[in-house]
Amino acid sequence: MSETTDAAAQNDDPAPAASAPGREAVIDLLGLLALGELLAFERMVYDARLAPDLGRRAALSEAAVGEIRNYRLLADRLQELGADPGEAMAPFKEAFRSFDASTSPRDWLEALVKVYLGDAVADDFFRVVSAGLEEQDRTLIETVLAETGASDLAAEEIRAAVEADAAVTGRLSLWARRLVGEGINRAQGVAAANERLTAIIVGDGGTLDALLRRLTRAHQDRMKSVGLNN
Amino acid sequence: MSETTDAAAQNDDPAPAASAPGREAVIDLLGLLALGELLAFERMVYDARLAPDLGRRAALSEAAVGEIRNYRLLADRLQELGADPGEAMAPFKEAFRSFDASTSPRDWLEALVKVYLGDAVADDFFRVVSAGLEEQDRTLIETVLAETGASDLAAEEIRAAVEADAAVTGRLSLWARRLVGEGINRAQGVAAANERLTAIIVGDGGTLDALLRRLTRAHQDRMKSVGLNN
Repeated sequence: MSETTDAAAQNDDPAPAASAPGREAVIDLLGLLALGELLAFERMVYDARLAPDLGRRAALSEAAVGEIRNYRLLADRLQELGADPGEAMAPFKEAFRSFDASTSPRDWLEALVKVYLGDAVADDFFRVVSAGLEEQDRTLIETVLAETGASDLAAEEIRAAVEADAAVTGRLSLWARRLVGEGINRAQGVAAANERLTAIIVGDGGTLDALLRRLTRAHQDRMKSVGLNN
Repeated sequence: MSETTDAAAQNDDPAPAASAPGREAVIDLLGLLALGELLAFERMVYDARLAPDLGRRAALSEAAVGEIRNYRLLADRLQELGADPGEAMAPFKEAFRSFDASTSPRDWLEALVKVYLGDAVADDFFRVVSAGLEEQDRTLIETVLAETGASDLAAEEIRAAVEADAAVTGRLSLWARRLVGEGINRAQGVAAANERLTAIIVGDGGTLDALLRRLTRAHQDRMKSVGLNN
């Protein structure tokens, strides 16, 4: 804010750039990311019940542990910033609830596509937003991104299913498109309701539409890698 | 059984006695314990949704991680014994499903009582059965027992709730009795269906009824320690 005093200049620690986002916007963003990780964890454990056998049911639950570990990293950072993690997450609860209510998987493969796709889009999103953050938060996000257990497990199972029965390709591709559509919908809702958060997400001169197009393209390339169509 | 050899006289420590349980019975038992841990994990994550705020919801999910870690230890041991964990667990799935279907908590405190009580009774049970096992399995069970995160969290919240509002005591005590009743019911069903497993659980000369009475007494003492009645 002020450039007239030393205290203000050294305000935050590793010297924030002139355009560094304010503390409140960072708390919003970390709250959104933390809730995303917490709910990804819960969703995997719920959806694990769709597994064809107890071994795979347990495997998805075990893979989900990476997400709750990520939640803890983000929650710790929120507390460091003086924020209550529960309160920082609360504004985004309804968007996630409504997304999950409209995309409840009907079987094991749909559950895995949701895991794979959700994890991948979340990772792309993490990468995009981390660019605008300070050193410490960027490092935190790199640690979060390094966790790929659930995504690897899901990709492997989807590939095997597509190879074993080409007929599932169409059905799962359609399901993936629906997930993306619903996801874009909720992202627009969250952005419309929170200007401060949107500013930090899209960055200087960016627009939400451009960001969503970019995420969608990355997603389409990734679908191919597990044998699905765009 | 025999009093004629030193090995039998010191029955209880390392060296398996002549009466050491067969491999199949140990696999049954480890399958039962592994499924118990896996489902305790899932149940906590599901029931965490009943939490009054996102912070406590996350806390219960985080505490649940100890259970899935225990599941992994037991599953690894099953694999060491040449058994498939999924197959070893399958015979007990219906008993747990039916227990959970008849004891679905209606609110956060009921969920916590179920966590606390389930964890405690499971621990008592682990202790009882470990006596009949060989060294390696006893050590494994000690490691499993050392995990108390979920139970500690639940006990703390229940005590605080009882202190804040004495009126909840009666309701939660009744709920705890119902959980125990349903649990005994399912235990009897499992025992009746599997003689080999029952033999390893009750030990030489023991009966299931005596074991259940012993577990129930331990449970009653424990209820008092969180402010509930028998």
